[in-house]
Amino acid sequence: MPESLSRRGLLGWGAASAAVGAAGFAGGMATANASEGDGGRAGGGTTGDARAVASDSYPFYGTHQAGIVTPAQDRLHFAAFDVTTTSREDLVALLTAWTAAAAEMTAGRPVGGDPTSYSAPPNDSGEADGLSASRLTLTFGFGPTLFRDAAGKDRFGISGRQPAALQRLPHFPADALDPARSDGDLCVQACADDPQVAVHAIRNLARLGFGVVSLRWSQLGYGRTSSTSTAQATPRNLFGFKDGTANLKAEDPSALDAHLWVGAKDDPKAPWMAGGSYLVARRIAMNLETWDRSSLREQEAVIGRDRREGAPLSGGKEFTAPDFTVKGREGQPLVAASSHVAMAHPTRNGGVQMLRRGYNYTDGSDDLGRMDAGLFFIAYVRNPARQYIPMQTRMAKQDALQEYLQHRGSALFAIPPGAKEGEHIGQALFA
Amino acid sequence: MPESLSRRGLLGWGAASAAVGAAGFAGGMATANASEGDGGRAGGGTTGDARAVASDSYPFYGTHQAGIVTPAQDRLHFAAFDVTTTSREDLVALLTAWTAAAAEMTAGRPVGGDPTSYSAPPNDSGEADGLSASRLTLTFGFGPTLFRDAAGKDRFGISGRQPAALQRLPHFPADALDPARSDGDLCVQACADDPQVAVHAIRNLARLGFGVVSLRWSQLGYGRTSSTSTAQATPRNLFGFKDGTANLKAEDPSALDAHLWVGAKDDPKAPWMAGGSYLVARRIAMNLETWDRSSLREQEAVIGRDRREGAPLSGGKEFTAPDFTVKGREGQPLVAASSHVAMAHPTRNGGVQMLRRGYNYTDGSDDLGRMDAGLFFIAYVRNPARQYIPMQTRMAKQDALQEYLQHRGSALFAIPPGAKEGEHIGQALFA
Repeated sequence: MPESLSRRGLLGWGAASAAVGAAGFAGGMATANASEGDGGRAGGGTTGDARAVASDSYPFYGTHQAGIVTPAQDRLHFAAFDVTTTSREDLVALLTAWTAAAAEMTAGRPVGGDPTSYSAPPNDSGEADGLSASRLTLTFGFGPTLFRDAAGKDRFGISGRQPAALQRLPHFPADALDPARSDGDLCVQACADDPQVAVHAIRNLARLGFGVVSLRWSQLGYGRTSSTSTAQATPRNLFGFKDGTANLKAEDPSALDAHLWVGAKDDPKAPWMAGGSYLVARRIAMNLETWDRSSLREQEAVIGRDRREGAPLSGGKEFTAPDFTVKGREGQPLVAASSHVAMAHPTRNGGVQMLRRGYNYTDGSDDLGRMDAGLFFIAYVRNPARQYIPMQTRMAKQDALQEYLQHRGSALFAIPPGAKEGEHIGQALFA
Repeated sequence: MPESLSRRGLLGWGAASAAVGAAGFAGGMATANASEGDGGRAGGGTTGDARAVASDSYPFYGTHQAGIVTPAQDRLHFAAFDVTTTSREDLVALLTAWTAAAAEMTAGRPVGGDPTSYSAPPNDSGEADGLSASRLTLTFGFGPTLFRDAAGKDRFGISGRQPAALQRLPHFPADALDPARSDGDLCVQACADDPQVAVHAIRNLARLGFGVVSLRWSQLGYGRTSSTSTAQATPRNLFGFKDGTANLKAEDPSALDAHLWVGAKDDPKAPWMAGGSYLVARRIAMNLETWDRSSLREQEAVIGRDRREGAPLSGGKEFTAPDFTVKGREGQPLVAASSHVAMAHPTRNGGVQMLRRGYNYTDGSDDLGRMDAGLFFIAYVRNPARQYIPMQTRMAKQDALQEYLQHRGSALFAIPPGAKEGEHIGQALFA
């Protein structure tokens, strides 16, 4: 029970810096991650004692930001902010404050330490006191509107450094976007195994941003829909199928370099993005009622995999590569060309791969008494113009699954590389 | 990782009935619960092996419904339904189907078993396949509008059995209710340690109700705000304070009989409620921004407890009874009469106690860029007219905390006793 552990008691101020170590925990996950610079659980020990649980934290500082190849945590709180100030100085000050707060919270410490005065508001809102770090990661990004306003005007003296790939996502066929759930100047992805820890983090970052940023939209996700490590089992989406079987995984660093991380020479205008990535967010409502009335045969044909095991319909097991040439009795391919697995497969997309990191969401019900539920799709790519956009353009037209989906929210953010200690997130952009 | 466990593999059909046993697990919790008829984890063993985790289930059938004194699970999905049919027969058939499905899902089994046909939709939507039972409980209730429509007309031939205490909650001072988040003919409270299991349960019950009921509203809660067992640590609400310290606990059966369970002679018109309870639901938005700008002194004075330990300001530790007579330097009580702890304390409410079982919620943000967050308050009481209503009437006027709260949703449901095997929920009402 994480509630029984005290952040203050077990990770007191004296011990805190010592906790940011590299002692591995959970074997392969920590190893794979450490090589990417954002992994290796702090603290340590593999026993089940309270101290080991309380030290379930990832370092905030590193070559890459945490929360990308980090083994996908169970819960999400994602927030997009609009910058309300015109002051570059205030914006940089906020990024500096956010960096310090993120380092504290991901280590399981309250923002700004314990209250020291009764006559001032506490620095930290307190609802995560007593909870462990819960493998919290905070991942920050910059939207295209941070660089130029709608009229194309430079907002903070950084428009000359806007990456060519950082443009508002196009309107794809059948998009039914809600502007109030799309876009944003800044984003923060908070992932943790305890949702209260993720919500606490976004709340305290929003609080630090008072007068500088305004919360544009936010999204809770309760169930991860992808694995980012071979050590994780593939979860199921709300259609009951395993999702993300062919995802990029932390254990394949050469594929990550090819498809995930921005290279030093990718964009001559944006060398500050080297070691970063791009985050595509899509709020995809799933028509559960319609799906639930489809036969199992139809469901499996639409996905291209069997429901129970997640094996491709061409045969084998979950991780067997689909064979698009195998035909059935009527001479049709067993994995239809319009099936989701075929449409999304690298071999049908010029070898393109993505690191998906989405979550199931359920936000009450709509006016017709249907659950408002679906997938909050998150994908990290090295170049959205070459990876996500062409794929989604084709899928929106041809993917058999699209009949059951509605894309309601959309955003693209540039994810800078990780900060070193003493730096703030995005420092090279503003330097 | 629950994802690595297969419901089907570990709790196969042959072994399923054997799993509904009484082998204790987690010591005091199971013991306390078993005495109330809804506890004792099914399956068993106290080792950490996969089978023990997969059998983390509570029996559905019992003297009382599960999900009341059951140790509060971490996550909630609450749903209110309107009955759209005029057929009593269809309503009873749905309650029968819901009972069977609830027994299956709480045991960690899919609704209706594994798919047996490719040409029909699967009985179960599948997104909980591979997840453990996750201590799922499903608790069913009947709203006042099930008995009579707005014109007072008997809807299903049960108006003569409507409990006197089951009336729409009054409009309390400062209520700002959204009708779309209030009331309902039926309710289902799904609690589990895995939110995907709770959401899956509501979704599959809604699906079984197609054509008979329509989802009126639903609410996800991510963090429990109360303990219902002395074995649980007191959690924190979104104001950062421990909540529910003085809650009724499963380990005090005489207090439960006095304050929680309806007695056989409580209501001569509604003997079917014996062993049941009443559920008050209130969606209480918390003004986090205002709270976050208050000094720690002000916050503690409003609550009447210190933030760190949760001890009453009159001294002691968390579970020390507050002493409302102790005065400070200026002659004022250390625990102010208008503080939340004073307003809610049994000694200030004619000895009234409740079993609170609420959850923190966060539902995105509002138009002003503020998090839409707060407490989804749930309380179980033997008689709302004597317990909740007088207390809330006073608190709405005098509780210092109300300045930071807005009540946006409201509902009252009669919670019938538990069903025996072979019966359906509410059978005595319709018999």
